[in-house]
Amino acid sequence: MVAAVAVRVRWSSRLLVPGKPCSSGRRGVSRGRRRASVARAARGNSATEYRLHCRLRPGDVGCATVSTEEPAFAGGADYERLLGPFVGDLAQPTSLSPLAYDLNAGVPDRDSLPVDAIADAMERALRADPGGALTYGGAQGYEPLRAWIADRESEASSLALGPANVTLCSGSAHAIDNIAATFLGPGDVAVISAPAYPGAIRSFRARGARIAAVPQDEGGMRADALEEVLDRITAQGATAKLIYLVATYDNPSGATVPRARREQIVEVAARHGVLIVEDDAYAGLDLDGPAPDSLFSVARGRGVLHVGTASKTIATGLRVGWVVGAEEAVRHVVFTRLDNGSSPLVLRTLLAYYEGGTHAAHLERIQGVYRERRDVAAEAVRAAFGELASFVLPGGGFYLWVRLAEGIDASALQAAAAERDVAVTTGTLYAPEGTDERHIRLAYPTVAPDTLREAIARLGEACAAVAAKSAGLS
Amino acid sequence: MVAAVAVRVRWSSRLLVPGKPCSSGRRGVSRGRRRASVARAARGNSATEYRLHCRLRPGDVGCATVSTEEPAFAGGADYERLLGPFVGDLAQPTSLSPLAYDLNAGVPDRDSLPVDAIADAMERALRADPGGALTYGGAQGYEPLRAWIADRESEASSLALGPANVTLCSGSAHAIDNIAATFLGPGDVAVISAPAYPGAIRSFRARGARIAAVPQDEGGMRADALEEVLDRITAQGATAKLIYLVATYDNPSGATVPRARREQIVEVAARHGVLIVEDDAYAGLDLDGPAPDSLFSVARGRGVLHVGTASKTIATGLRVGWVVGAEEAVRHVVFTRLDNGSSPLVLRTLLAYYEGGTHAAHLERIQGVYRERRDVAAEAVRAAFGELASFVLPGGGFYLWVRLAEGIDASALQAAAAERDVAVTTGTLYAPEGTDERHIRLAYPTVAPDTLREAIARLGEACAAVAAKSAGLS
Repeated sequence: MVAAVAVRVRWSSRLLVPGKPCSSGRRGVSRGRRRASVARAARGNSATEYRLHCRLRPGDVGCATVSTEEPAFAGGADYERLLGPFVGDLAQPTSLSPLAYDLNAGVPDRDSLPVDAIADAMERALRADPGGALTYGGAQGYEPLRAWIADRESEASSLALGPANVTLCSGSAHAIDNIAATFLGPGDVAVISAPAYPGAIRSFRARGARIAAVPQDEGGMRADALEEVLDRITAQGATAKLIYLVATYDNPSGATVPRARREQIVEVAARHGVLIVEDDAYAGLDLDGPAPDSLFSVARGRGVLHVGTASKTIATGLRVGWVVGAEEAVRHVVFTRLDNGSSPLVLRTLLAYYEGGTHAAHLERIQGVYRERRDVAAEAVRAAFGELASFVLPGGGFYLWVRLAEGIDASALQAAAAERDVAVTTGTLYAPEGTDERHIRLAYPTVAPDTLREAIARLGEACAAVAAKSAGLS
Repeated sequence: MVAAVAVRVRWSSRLLVPGKPCSSGRRGVSRGRRRASVARAARGNSATEYRLHCRLRPGDVGCATVSTEEPAFAGGADYERLLGPFVGDLAQPTSLSPLAYDLNAGVPDRDSLPVDAIADAMERALRADPGGALTYGGAQGYEPLRAWIADRESEASSLALGPANVTLCSGSAHAIDNIAATFLGPGDVAVISAPAYPGAIRSFRARGARIAAVPQDEGGMRADALEEVLDRITAQGATAKLIYLVATYDNPSGATVPRARREQIVEVAARHGVLIVEDDAYAGLDLDGPAPDSLFSVARGRGVLHVGTASKTIATGLRVGWVVGAEEAVRHVVFTRLDNGSSPLVLRTLLAYYEGGTHAAHLERIQGVYRERRDVAAEAVRAAFGELASFVLPGGGFYLWVRLAEGIDASALQAAAAERDVAVTTGTLYAPEGTDERHIRLAYPTVAPDTLREAIARLGEACAAVAAKSAGLS
């Protein structure tokens, strides 16, 4: 059966408007599809929706005769039924916000990206050894970049490190997932701070691990609570495999664990034989002078995997992260890797960028940018919220972790803020167990000072509105 | 305690030779380490090995006084004990061979890489939208590239596909691992062909899934055996979640499933409600005319996830792969993703490369290169092995799957070949259950014709040596 129908063109083709001649500049045409007229069409998911697949010449008109056939994809496998056993335990992944005032983006400022240095590094990396850059680089990753990272970590820690102590991953979230693959299985326990980075929670749950939460205070993960949690896990006959935390400029809390507490955490973990996974994604984003020595350094490398990334100081779009640890531990992580390695083109680009000699100046520059924005944000929150919120000024990183006064529900504030075009996230997103309606996370790095003031002023209005409503109801 | 010692410099620093003045051209110095003399030193893993960490000026001398302290990394966590429950089930990952005659590398020929087109595409992709290229691009991946892939797949299948039907991954091994994360858990069964791509076996086992093997014949996975295996799994009360195969130019067997059998496989899978994961990594590497329609196309998109990659036709170093499927299935795969998305810089580079208009000519060129090498390899194997081996000429892809005569053990041949500087892999690497000492896989794409002849001649000598020894022993 053949039927003449009006065609609804798929947006992705961007080829035609029904009845309107096609210009030569359309995407489909520019890809060399200059063959005559309409080749075929297919029906979409519904009985009345038809979609066009065509090869066009400039001037062709966007309507077509299509043969009717059964709708594509009707029937088939019951994907829901086939889902793995732990997928249902995962929270929705986070994403960037489409709202105009985005206080949600934990990414570097776009205008501060070192574009020229990266472009130059890419060109050099590719031209220096095209075959090396464009062929598998192995599961552990490009050795000269591993050596460079080992050197930098050696300088920071006075530990004797070489490339065998480092493996390169596709961002630190991928590094954490690779560590999860290596050490976690169903029934194992991953100990994490509360609040915590949601990406880590997802990776641990996806392996079937149980999560045990250790509360934070102003100094980050509490060592006394960690000890209690580990004792409780042992008493239950379960096995705590790892302790995950961001000890420096935490996401989301902004907290930095003080030196003395770092020693306690290392000591407690070692006594319980549990691996520490130190996510140091915000390393280098010092806004008030240097951070304390890493847990990895404090532990003299024993029992700690130190996770780093180029995402926060250079660009998230590179997707380069790494794990530094004892050779034996790194060997296990490399062995367990399942994706045939990260892009050597990108890894070589990153090394060429580091060796280009501009990174120290870039880091100093963005520290200045983020320091100003942190201070603007802090002042604006004080002005806009008054008694309705409090926070501890972070010594670095990207986030103000704002504690709301009693009666202000974080979700209600988030909704009221969205009505005013402002995006923030609530504590619940970072709560490994239950909810947290007492906090919002406010990310300042991508927002210029004036916009930041305006966004936080709107957030304050939203908060006042929620407070008024809450007072009226109580 | 402080001791004066002779310093053994870590190779990774490449800074010093003991007693020899440092020249200004060394890597460490060129990275701006121009501060005065030695800052500190640390002892290596053994009591007698000392390693130097230093900041140098040109002319500084490579020896130092170090304070003795406990060896780095001694003690610490018992990593072996902490390993996840399924890590022990994984085979060693494959890697490229260091031998001079490498018949092991399933990667594109280095001299045929489209370096200029990629360099040009990278530059354009980065300059067109630096902020977009260098910032997180979401878990599903760059939408215009998804649209492009959907269009190409629509053309091939006459199915109505859009960007929602596609998700982008970091290579097809990563795509397969993402699918494994989405659908497999402990106790689930993954049905795969025997022989099979080892990377898929690893990803399935890493999720705790059991493997059920379906034998191949000259037409790839046997549909009758598939039905038997699925019935047996059901009878055992287990759940087969997915069927994994490379239907076109299989790795390692080189086999292509004929059209009629494709319909049978699709029908059997649908009747059992099992998802098909069609790994089409070698799509486009047609050496004897076009391949049959994909399983995805044969199934009209129902119950099939179609996995593709830019690795084999463009470059493995890009690390870009994708999954095409029903929107609902793709949504699940995107939801389950754990690495914060692939590099938008690389994804945009790939689209800019495709849109650059040189890909069709590149593909034709490399088809010519690989066709010649396949034919040279086939002729050389016939000449070198005579009656001791047989194979079916593959219609495309990268591999000759050579069946050895009785009495020739593949491992013995591999060892004898390595003595002659030739790398091949044995069937056991691709055996999902037990061993396969009857086959070797011989990859021809990276080896120029004359070298290929020499390598295979050496392989033939190795085979003759093994046969002689075997005859002497029997």
